[in-house]
Amino acid sequence: MHTEPIPIKWNESTDVIVIGSGFAGLSAAIEAAEAGAEVMVLEKMKIKGGNSLISDGALAVAGSDWQVRDGVKDSPKRMQSDMQAAGLGLNHPELAALVTRESRNILNWTIDHLGVRYMDRLDQLGGHSVPRSVTTHNNSGVAIVRKQLAHLKSLQVNIRTRAYLTSLLRDSQGVVRGVAYRNGYLFGQPDSGETMTLAACKAVILATGGFGADVPFRSVQDPRLDERIAHTNHRGATAEGLIAALKLGATPVHLSWIQLGPWACADEKGFGKGASFVSYAVFSGGIIVNPETGERFVNELADRKVRADAILKTGQICIGVVDSAGAARGEEMLAPCLKRAYVQKFNHLNQLAEAYGMPAGRFLATAKRFNRAFGDRKQDEMGKPLLPGTGPIVDPPFYGVRIWPKVHYTMGGLRINSRAEVIDLAGKPIPRLFAAGEVTGGFHGASRLGSCAIPECLIMGRLAGKSAVKR
Amino acid sequence: MHTEPIPIKWNESTDVIVIGSGFAGLSAAIEAAEAGAEVMVLEKMKIKGGNSLISDGALAVAGSDWQVRDGVKDSPKRMQSDMQAAGLGLNHPELAALVTRESRNILNWTIDHLGVRYMDRLDQLGGHSVPRSVTTHNNSGVAIVRKQLAHLKSLQVNIRTRAYLTSLLRDSQGVVRGVAYRNGYLFGQPDSGETMTLAACKAVILATGGFGADVPFRSVQDPRLDERIAHTNHRGATAEGLIAALKLGATPVHLSWIQLGPWACADEKGFGKGASFVSYAVFSGGIIVNPETGERFVNELADRKVRADAILKTGQICIGVVDSAGAARGEEMLAPCLKRAYVQKFNHLNQLAEAYGMPAGRFLATAKRFNRAFGDRKQDEMGKPLLPGTGPIVDPPFYGVRIWPKVHYTMGGLRINSRAEVIDLAGKPIPRLFAAGEVTGGFHGASRLGSCAIPECLIMGRLAGKSAVKR
Repeated sequence: MHTEPIPIKWNESTDVIVIGSGFAGLSAAIEAAEAGAEVMVLEKMKIKGGNSLISDGALAVAGSDWQVRDGVKDSPKRMQSDMQAAGLGLNHPELAALVTRESRNILNWTIDHLGVRYMDRLDQLGGHSVPRSVTTHNNSGVAIVRKQLAHLKSLQVNIRTRAYLTSLLRDSQGVVRGVAYRNGYLFGQPDSGETMTLAACKAVILATGGFGADVPFRSVQDPRLDERIAHTNHRGATAEGLIAALKLGATPVHLSWIQLGPWACADEKGFGKGASFVSYAVFSGGIIVNPETGERFVNELADRKVRADAILKTGQICIGVVDSAGAARGEEMLAPCLKRAYVQKFNHLNQLAEAYGMPAGRFLATAKRFNRAFGDRKQDEMGKPLLPGTGPIVDPPFYGVRIWPKVHYTMGGLRINSRAEVIDLAGKPIPRLFAAGEVTGGFHGASRLGSCAIPECLIMGRLAGKSAVKR
Repeated sequence: MHTEPIPIKWNESTDVIVIGSGFAGLSAAIEAAEAGAEVMVLEKMKIKGGNSLISDGALAVAGSDWQVRDGVKDSPKRMQSDMQAAGLGLNHPELAALVTRESRNILNWTIDHLGVRYMDRLDQLGGHSVPRSVTTHNNSGVAIVRKQLAHLKSLQVNIRTRAYLTSLLRDSQGVVRGVAYRNGYLFGQPDSGETMTLAACKAVILATGGFGADVPFRSVQDPRLDERIAHTNHRGATAEGLIAALKLGATPVHLSWIQLGPWACADEKGFGKGASFVSYAVFSGGIIVNPETGERFVNELADRKVRADAILKTGQICIGVVDSAGAARGEEMLAPCLKRAYVQKFNHLNQLAEAYGMPAGRFLATAKRFNRAFGDRKQDEMGKPLLPGTGPIVDPPFYGVRIWPKVHYTMGGLRINSRAEVIDLAGKPIPRLFAAGEVTGGFHGASRLGSCAIPECLIMGRLAGKSAVKR
C-alpha cells in the first residue's frame, strides 16, 4: 500500500525493464534492444509467452494484401467504427484510431521482420463488418511468440523467468527507478523465491496482461464472475502488475468491463480447441440453438458481448451445429475435438437433436429457415451476414458442440496515452513508467472484437519500447 | 501522487473528520457526535448540503407504513432484486442487501429523530416493481438537510465551509491520521485559501459525493460524456475526494458506469423542476414519443439506463405528453415549469403534435393505443405497468415537455465493506478511513434506480459515523 523507498544499493541494474513476456512485452523488448538499450525481461511463470501462447493467433488488419486480393473494401476508419460499435462508445478514440491505423504495418512487421507465416485465408469474425482477420499458419499465438523469442536471443536480451514483480520503486520526485521482485518464484506460492531489486536507468514497461484468472480481483469488479465461472486464460493472468501501478496513482479505466467468450466449449478446460472450432467453423458456417426450444436466438456473428449475454440469458448450455462443409473452416481443430468428445458427429440432424435433448421438429424447422436464406440469398432471420464460402446446413456428417461462456478478456486496465505512458489520477504521465497490452484499458471500451488484441499488443508494445528509450 | 508525510505539528485536531456535508456526511457527523466524539465537517462550497440540496427528496423503502396502508406487498428482498436487475448483476450483493434491509429503519429515523415530513403519497418510479417511494413534503432534499443541520447545531458540531480537501495524511504504518485542506477556498480557484492540516484522533470519513460535474474525470471513464453533455449536479460534484483515496491505494469499483437521467428537460439547466415534472407526472401518468415518428419507443417506467439509452438511440429530443389528470401528480412543479416554458400547455392533442413538429395522425393513433390499454385494463404495448390512480390521456389541457438525458449519477466509486471501511487493492481496510454516499461504489451496479440513493446515503453515513467511533 505504501510507496517503497528506493534502495540505496540495487542488486542489479539495466536500461529498460519489461515486466511480462507475452506479445506486448516481447515487442517492447525488441524495440528497446534494437535502439541500443540494455533490456531485462522479467516473467513470473516458468515458461515464456504468457497468455499469448494460448491465443488463436488472429490479427484484425485494415488493408492487408489478402483484403486487396479478395477485393474487400476496408479502412482503418471502418475498423475503428466496428470497434466502437462493440465498445458502446466507451473506447478512447485516439487509442482505437492508433491501433487501426497501424494494423497493416504491424502485420507486415511480423512477416518481414520476424518471419511469421499466416494461413492463406481471410475470416470475418463476430462484430467485424468485413472479412479482415488473418491467422498464423498454426492457428496459434505460438507462431508469433516463438519468432519474437528467437529474435530477442539474437539481440542477446535476457529473459528471466520465475521473476515475480512485487512493487514498482520510485524516488522522492515520483520518478520510477526500478522494481522489486521475487527471484526464483513458484506460481501460487507467494513466499517463494528471494526479494531482489533491479534498477532501470531508462524506463519500466508493464506488459503483465489481463486479470481474467484473478478471481478475487475480477469479482470485486463484477460479482457474477466468482470461482464458479471458468476462464480461457493461463493461470498466471492475475492482477499484480496492474495493482502495482494503481498503487502509484495510475488511473484505472473500464475495470468492470470483463469479456466473456461466447464460443467457449462447456466440455473442456481453458480456451481450448473446441472454442477455436466454434469460433471459426460453427459461428461463421453454422448456427447456435437453445436446446430447450430447438431455436436460434442470436446472430452468430454479433459482437462477443451480444452473443455471450444472449447465451447466458437462455440459462442453457447451448448447442452449436454445423455441417461437414462448414466444419471444414475449422478443419485443423476437428480431429482433436472429436477425439476428446468436445465435438460430436452425427449422420442425421434428427440424431443430433435427440443426442442433445432438443425438440426435433422445431430444430429441423430452424435449420430449414436458416438454409432457405441461402437459397434466396436473402437476409437471415437473425441478421447474420451470409459469408462468401458458407452455405446451408445440408452436407452430412453434422457436428454438435456444447457452448457456455467463459471469462476471456479484461477490457479495463491502466490509462495510457498514445506514447504508451501511464497516466496518473491528475492526468499527467508517471515519469518513466510505460504500459502495453491487456494490462492497459481504453482501446476496446465495453467489448473487444475478436482478433483486435494481438495487433494492439504488438503495436503498443513496440511503441512502449521506442518511447522508453527516446528520452 | 505521493503519500504526504504527516506533519510534525498539526494546525488543529479533532476526533472525527467528515469531508462533505450532504446526506451521507451529515448523517455520519450526527452519529459520531451522538456517540460523544468531537466532530469537524469540512465542506468545500460556500453553502452546506452539497448535491443533496438539489435532490428530489424521494426514498425507496421496503415496508413503509404507506405500503402497509395501501396493501402493497413488498420486502427488502424484492427491492434488492429490483436493484440488481437494473444493476445488471454488478451490484455488490451484501451492500444492496444492507440498504434494502435498513430502508424502513432509516425512513423512521428521519421522521422520529430528525422530524422530516413526507407527502402522503406512494410513487412507483422506473425500474421498481411496486410503489415504494415516499417523498419529502416539499419534493426536495432540502427538507432532510435542513433538519440534519439543525440537529448538528444542537449537538454543537462545527461545519467549516470553503474548506477543500487536498490530501489524506497517513503515518508510516499506513494509518490515516488526518487531512490537509485549503481553508477559505473559493470553488474553481485551485490556489485560493491557505493550506491547513487537521488531525483526526479517531477517523476520517469521506462523503464527498459523485463526480458527475467533473468533465475531465468522467470523460476518461466514458469518453462520450465530454463538455457537450449537460449534467444535473451542483457544480461541486467533482472527483477530488475519490482521487485522494485512490492515491492511498483504495480499490475503485464501477467507475465507468455513469448514469444519465432520462427525465431531464432539454430547456433548463441542471436537475430542475422540469425533470421532477417528467419523473413524477409524465413517466407515470403519460407517455414519451419520438417527434419524428409520433410513436412511443420505451416503457416509461423501465429503469433509468434502459430509458436513457432508448432516448439517445432516437437521436431526437423526445416529447413527454401528459393530460391534466396525469399532470396533477407533479402539481407543485407545474406552475413554475409553465412560467419558464419548460412545459407547454395545449387544449388539443393535435395542437401539441403541431407545436413539436410531429406527424399528427400517427401521434393521435399512439395516444389512442395507450388509452385503450386502460379501457381493457390489459397489458400496455410497451410493457408499462398501469399504476393505480393513472388513466388514459383524455382530460384537457394537455402538457408537453422536451426531454434529453443529462449526466445524473456516478454508480462507481470507492470499494467499501458493510462497516463503511474503505478497502485497499489487497482487499484489506485502510486503517481509520471510512466512506459513505455517492463517493462509494457497488450498491447500484450498472444503473441506480430512482430514490435508492437517499436511503443509501443516510444509512451508510450513519454506519460510517458509528464505525468511526467504535474502536
